[in-house]
Amino acid sequence: MSLDGFVAGPNPSVQDPLGVGGEQLHEWVFPLEIWRRPHGLEGGVVNESTPVMEEEQANIGATIMGRNMFGGGPGPWDEKDPWNGWWGSTPPFHHPVFVLTHHARETVVMEGGTRFTFVTDGTESALDQARRAAGGKDVALAGGARVAQQYLKAGLVDEMQLHVVPMLLGGGARLFEGVGALRSLVLVKTAAASDVVHLKFAVGGEWQVG
Amino acid sequence: MSLDGFVAGPNPSVQDPLGVGGEQLHEWVFPLEIWRRPHGLEGGVVNESTPVMEEEQANIGATIMGRNMFGGGPGPWDEKDPWNGWWGSTPPFHHPVFVLTHHARETVVMEGGTRFTFVTDGTESALDQARRAAGGKDVALAGGARVAQQYLKAGLVDEMQLHVVPMLLGGGARLFEGVGALRSLVLVKTAAASDVVHLKFAVGGEWQVG
Repeated sequence: MSLDGFVAGPNPSVQDPLGVGGEQLHEWVFPLEIWRRPHGLEGGVVNESTPVMEEEQANIGATIMGRNMFGGGPGPWDEKDPWNGWWGSTPPFHHPVFVLTHHARETVVMEGGTRFTFVTDGTESALDQARRAAGGKDVALAGGARVAQQYLKAGLVDEMQLHVVPMLLGGGARLFEGVGALRSLVLVKTAAASDVVHLKFAVGGEWQVG
Repeated sequence: MSLDGFVAGPNPSVQDPLGVGGEQLHEWVFPLEIWRRPHGLEGGVVNESTPVMEEEQANIGATIMGRNMFGGGPGPWDEKDPWNGWWGSTPPFHHPVFVLTHHARETVVMEGGTRFTFVTDGTESALDQARRAAGGKDVALAGGARVAQQYLKAGLVDEMQLHVVPMLLGGGARLFEGVGALRSLVLVKTAAASDVVHLKFAVGGEWQVG
């Protein structure tokens, strides 16, 4: 998230799926060894962000994401030239991933343990399926903003790990748009590298949905 | 600032000048010995926020604030029942304070070294006057949001010390509304107590005013 609250920049396009400047929100992660390894890349640095990423990845048994994060454009799936995500033949998840979409599609099995299941009957169904697939481990909610907002509003988020990047995007997709007020979050852990601040919260207390 | 970017809550009123829930943004500071002492109160705690506040207050020679932060309602000043701020006869500033307003008024000298000067000819004039009054020390920009935005947009802010409180206000005055994009801020220092995260930034680089 940028310091002004955006998880993607303004004017997203096919060339610029994260909007103008949005890619820069992720630049802190690309040099990290812990990011490079699951993406099949050698080398990389170890810094203050490494234990945060280790903890974030440690106990994940399934991931939920929105159609936009999975990509391939809006509308029905192209059956002749199927889009299987941004991540190549061996995606970095290595566990079942549930993609929220309005358009049905058969499950896609990738290399390395990632399996994309397309869920058309809503957020609660996706969570139920992900919980079962996770086998007692945690379910990660990867994004984008609209999916995060749906789960936040439904009171289905237990923990949030935010990566706050020292920049102002000035526009785009706000993470906390329209989720109402939540008077108390419990600050569980913080860490900072030179280019990102990691804030972990436990979500408790009463939502005042606005 | 709340985690969703607000420095005051929705629906501000005379009873609730910081809007619904806005007062809660400041609750981390009230128990601190370093806050209580300049307000003429004894006791208080010392925690991870203390060195942050010490550093923030260490070299301030003058403060600038907006009319709303000074208070007394909108419009011309009431000469019969003059409003001299929220802070009683000995305000906690102990140095010259410049209040941006559309309504001229004579300077008010308080006890303890605070002097309120009312500036009607704009942000640059207030900064010039504050710089001269500060005598080589720093000028603090206290708020509120609109005043901060004016100085940010004008490129007149060198450093930002944000106090991020783990709550969502869901509405109100956004600190970074309408200030455009700033692709890089330098993260200078971070600190965290149980109820607030302190983030200090140096403002450099190119503004893309949106």
